[in-house]
Amino acid sequence: VDAGALDAARSRDASLTKPPGSLGQLEDLAIWYAGWRGERPKLEAPQILIFAGNHGVTAQGVSAFPPEVTAQMVANFNAGGAAINQLARCFGARIDVHPITLDRPTGDFTEGPAMTEAELLEALSLGWAAVDPAADLVIAGEMGIGNTTSAAALAAAMFGGNPRDWVGRGTGVDDEGLARKAAAVAAGLARHRGELLDPLEALRRLGGRELAAMAGAIAAARSHRIPVILDGFICTAAAAVLERIAPGALDHAIAGHQSEEPGHARLLGALGKRPVLTLGLRLGEGSGAAVALGVLKAAIACHSGMATFAEAGVADGPG
Amino acid sequence: VDAGALDAARSRDASLTKPPGSLGQLEDLAIWYAGWRGERPKLEAPQILIFAGNHGVTAQGVSAFPPEVTAQMVANFNAGGAAINQLARCFGARIDVHPITLDRPTGDFTEGPAMTEAELLEALSLGWAAVDPAADLVIAGEMGIGNTTSAAALAAAMFGGNPRDWVGRGTGVDDEGLARKAAAVAAGLARHRGELLDPLEALRRLGGRELAAMAGAIAAARSHRIPVILDGFICTAAAAVLERIAPGALDHAIAGHQSEEPGHARLLGALGKRPVLTLGLRLGEGSGAAVALGVLKAAIACHSGMATFAEAGVADGPG
Repeated sequence: VDAGALDAARSRDASLTKPPGSLGQLEDLAIWYAGWRGERPKLEAPQILIFAGNHGVTAQGVSAFPPEVTAQMVANFNAGGAAINQLARCFGARIDVHPITLDRPTGDFTEGPAMTEAELLEALSLGWAAVDPAADLVIAGEMGIGNTTSAAALAAAMFGGNPRDWVGRGTGVDDEGLARKAAAVAAGLARHRGELLDPLEALRRLGGRELAAMAGAIAAARSHRIPVILDGFICTAAAAVLERIAPGALDHAIAGHQSEEPGHARLLGALGKRPVLTLGLRLGEGSGAAVALGVLKAAIACHSGMATFAEAGVADGPG
Repeated sequence: VDAGALDAARSRDASLTKPPGSLGQLEDLAIWYAGWRGERPKLEAPQILIFAGNHGVTAQGVSAFPPEVTAQMVANFNAGGAAINQLARCFGARIDVHPITLDRPTGDFTEGPAMTEAELLEALSLGWAAVDPAADLVIAGEMGIGNTTSAAALAAAMFGGNPRDWVGRGTGVDDEGLARKAAAVAAGLARHRGELLDPLEALRRLGGRELAAMAGAIAAARSHRIPVILDGFICTAAAAVLERIAPGALDHAIAGHQSEEPGHARLLGALGKRPVLTLGLRLGEGSGAAVALGVLKAAIACHSGMATFAEAGVADGPG
């Protein structure tokens, strides 16, 4: 982050025609963004990336929907019919959809590694290359039936705790489905015990191609100084791999929202991220981050567009 | 509200390509909006009204800014330099600014009624007439040095409790200023004791012209079936007058945000309104409601624009 740009943004913020601090979290967001993008920034070219993958662990009965839905939803993204398409249009974002070998699911992590090293590297690289260096904001979203189970296993491997702490109802499983998810996570942790200390290795063994691609994209955004809005539980679990490798690696990222998936609040707490929104979302696709994009645009519009006390001839304190 | 439109919206919501309930509060917002505007609504013509007034109670030292700032900020609104101008541009809203006899402040309510009956009626009517019947959403915002004290007195008159429960730092008073605000509220309640049971009479005695105008505008919006997003403490106190006159009078209104002003959470609780956002704002001008407008636009875009499971050929449950 550019300390000079941060200082300039704080100083500009203090000069704007409003009582100090009265725009609350909007001021923090604008100053953070300016720290990465420079003085009086604009947010005009946001890029939403959606990575899709299939998961061998669906064999354990962990989802309310069949795996075919992953490909069907990719078609829906491409046809413009999904929630994320409407949100992108609403806030002027471009969408790029990347299905990753949907006909070849990951391995069932309760039985072996989800990916080979070559497969992990391929997915990371695909995510890295998907970021447009000309974008001024990146959202990494996902679609993948079964991937809340994968994210829960990955989070448990990185942050400890009971599998029950990390699993939730995902797309809407019943109590038995929830028990199957917890059992799958426990089986995965047992199966790969002793091999999960390296976060990238945990990602390879328990994660999925779309999770790896999100991690690659978020890392690439950092290299281009492009701020990131994190989406829900799955995106945040993927992003956490970077933070576990190098603390501070997510300083260019904010939490767009806190999802309804219970592990997400726990994960955000572990990462020290305060969500912009809490709207009870649990859809994925980058949808929560896309709604937060509206708030971030508002914050930046105020910061970069408002008049200063001097410009407007407004008294800035008791006369 | 149109029960048929509500039912149609619930039924459409259940058919959209997402797990049921996965858009959380966005689904509730879209269904509520459709209940007032009809099936597959669009939100294309939002109107932001800003009413400005001056307050005799500023003589009690209740604000961190001098009363001249009210007129200076009106000039800033008209020049496009305030926060609300940037937010309106960001989300495609029109702004109409109505300064109300700024050279003639209300009476100091610690000494007598803030307004005569004629003045109250004039301000209510001005607010009523300011609503464009062709708008599809209304935000009523305000500017008025001293008006958090007026709103606190009005809220205390309507909902009881200690003056300390309703006053906050407003634009940023120090501890002594806060004590002066509580003392002014207590003095106002004592001065008008026995005359505050009628909510309109409480508005006349303790409120202000911009509060009355907001109440008039919110009532007019209801008569045109135009949904309303409430802003912060002052707007919500003005709106509460309507609810106290006729329970249900605010069913066409949602709480855009919960402000940092401590009385606002208490007021929203009394009205049974759950805020869309909690971003620590305390600016007024309609700013919190304008940020929530972005969220509401997102909700409606999803509801009205998404494909159904049948349209997209997506399996809507276990195959």
